[in-house]
Amino acid sequence: MSDTERSARLKSQVRIVGTGLLGASIGLALREKGIDVTLDDASPSALALAVDYGAGRLPQPGDIPQLVIVCVPPDVTSSLIERELLAFPDAVVTDVASVKLQPFRDLSGKGVDLTNYIGSHPLAGRERGGAISARADIFFGRPWVICRDEETPSWALALVEDLALDLGSTPIEMTPEEHDRSVALVSHVPQVVASLLAARLTDAPETAVTLAGQGVRDTTRIASSDPVLWLQILGANANPVVEVLHELRNDLDTVIGALTATEADGTATPGARRAIADAIAAGNAGVARLPGKHGQNRRFESVTVMVDDKPGTLGRLLTEIGEIGVNMEDLRLEHSPGAQIGFAEISVVPEVKQRAIEDLEARGWRIAAL
Amino acid sequence: MSDTERSARLKSQVRIVGTGLLGASIGLALREKGIDVTLDDASPSALALAVDYGAGRLPQPGDIPQLVIVCVPPDVTSSLIERELLAFPDAVVTDVASVKLQPFRDLSGKGVDLTNYIGSHPLAGRERGGAISARADIFFGRPWVICRDEETPSWALALVEDLALDLGSTPIEMTPEEHDRSVALVSHVPQVVASLLAARLTDAPETAVTLAGQGVRDTTRIASSDPVLWLQILGANANPVVEVLHELRNDLDTVIGALTATEADGTATPGARRAIADAIAAGNAGVARLPGKHGQNRRFESVTVMVDDKPGTLGRLLTEIGEIGVNMEDLRLEHSPGAQIGFAEISVVPEVKQRAIEDLEARGWRIAAL
Repeated sequence: MSDTERSARLKSQVRIVGTGLLGASIGLALREKGIDVTLDDASPSALALAVDYGAGRLPQPGDIPQLVIVCVPPDVTSSLIERELLAFPDAVVTDVASVKLQPFRDLSGKGVDLTNYIGSHPLAGRERGGAISARADIFFGRPWVICRDEETPSWALALVEDLALDLGSTPIEMTPEEHDRSVALVSHVPQVVASLLAARLTDAPETAVTLAGQGVRDTTRIASSDPVLWLQILGANANPVVEVLHELRNDLDTVIGALTATEADGTATPGARRAIADAIAAGNAGVARLPGKHGQNRRFESVTVMVDDKPGTLGRLLTEIGEIGVNMEDLRLEHSPGAQIGFAEISVVPEVKQRAIEDLEARGWRIAAL
Repeated sequence: MSDTERSARLKSQVRIVGTGLLGASIGLALREKGIDVTLDDASPSALALAVDYGAGRLPQPGDIPQLVIVCVPPDVTSSLIERELLAFPDAVVTDVASVKLQPFRDLSGKGVDLTNYIGSHPLAGRERGGAISARADIFFGRPWVICRDEETPSWALALVEDLALDLGSTPIEMTPEEHDRSVALVSHVPQVVASLLAARLTDAPETAVTLAGQGVRDTTRIASSDPVLWLQILGANANPVVEVLHELRNDLDTVIGALTATEADGTATPGARRAIADAIAAGNAGVARLPGKHGQNRRFESVTVMVDDKPGTLGRLLTEIGEIGVNMEDLRLEHSPGAQIGFAEISVVPEVKQRAIEDLEARGWRIAAL
């Protein structure tokens, strides 16, 4: 029997502990695959809601899950992993918490046998939580980090990989340390930075916010996230986050120093100018490293079309883009406060750009070709 | 004769100095209105390109502009305002630089008569510059700040307001100090923060950037901006930018201190926890102040629809949204690296949300209602 066959057989009953967004979404996805899913939640009303949503059934005496997935807030993840390892000693237990070293340390420190525990983290989520926001497809195409240690049997690893693949994710193996440093960089620190930047707007004069454009909107979008959840995440990953924040503060001090030198002199010293330009250029280099839509660094080109702010105009545009056989890689709608008109910026592969422009212009659309 | 009639009569010939993105775009827009536009640029090739693009004509001996618009990089704005005031003593001279106090100070300090100078700043732009990116409509629906001082004659003010209105902008009067503090907050500091955050990705391991999602992408999008331009902007507005950056650093230090306390104890002191939650909550409050599409703080609700990554699917969706008579306030396309499927998140006014969901589901679309 191959590992995959074995893991599929072993996954005939899955127990999900915690029926928030992630737990309920995993339940919905596994139920679609015909897997028997049992649900548990400290809140009876949350549990009842998740059952109503079709994320799984209530547990019954004699249920023996082969896989337990702990999907609870970070501050109770460790204690529930321990409880489940004790309650189901033959099951593989995983969790989906966004920090991976802390549960491992907590449980090792207490002497819990972690042979059957494999930490994991699907990089999926939504701005709003709860079973009410659940959907089976939030994991589709997203990375799912799996943290194995040397003691993990390969069939147990295969079981969790199989879960990720079943849900349309891409499994990625990392150590807990690698994982925590990575998410500090690409998720936790961006959250802190967006929140601190947005906080500066709290007491801004009304005229100042009137001047806000797309730049500040994008930079602060995730600042609307839940303080309680983020308190737990940041607290559980404090060390890697603080490391990156220290580096950020050093860079910030350099920019403040350079700008202060500029201010004092009227004109800046050459060193001050260079420090500012270097900071912006380093940002150019950093943002270029983020992967594009299809997981590559492939660059798309954009075609910007003017659209009236009326029902149907954008739909007509996109229908016609379909008719001329052009595949949009991305779409960005730009608009301004007070304007009744907008711009649809369509990303396409460079090879079709010229033809897209010509065909759309022939159909009467106004294009701002760059 | 009303001020507006007078300003319209006075604006029969407009001279634009600097044919980059803004100068060429203003030229295109004024030419569409039938106004005689003359162009000047230190670079003969840039000038020739802008003429070819239809942004205006070459100046001829005997031309007498009534309005001169200086559209050059920040570091040469002051000297060109001075040159134009001397060359055309009967004309009103304005500029479009993104910092307003520095030119005023520079020129006052040199004893230049500023009666005919009115600083202005259209809050418009694109990520790419040059006449080649120009379009007549980039000012449409955007604010256009006008900085008058006590000496400014009202007919001269009306002339610049008329220019803003002609281009579809909303004129907003501010003092240079108010303007510079406002753009520091909503434009210059977000640029610095996005650049510093993106710079942290420069040396990130490949596995870390693989985990990047929409959050870090949005937070760092503007980090791709031009270092030379931003060096000039930040240098010219150093004092207000440094003020906001100091506040930001204080908040950053608070978060670093709180997270460090969390790390040292294993569990945090109550004060440390509260400081972290307060920082995230302050971000919630700040981001809520940004105006929405129609210049209000009105909140829209979103309906998320699953769309295949195939030509025509999104178009069909938006056509059907038009057919059911729902006006989209915004559209956000979400996708993941490697995924062949995406989600269209449509913002609508709360009153139509339920009907939109029902009608779309009746037509077979899969909705994730929140």
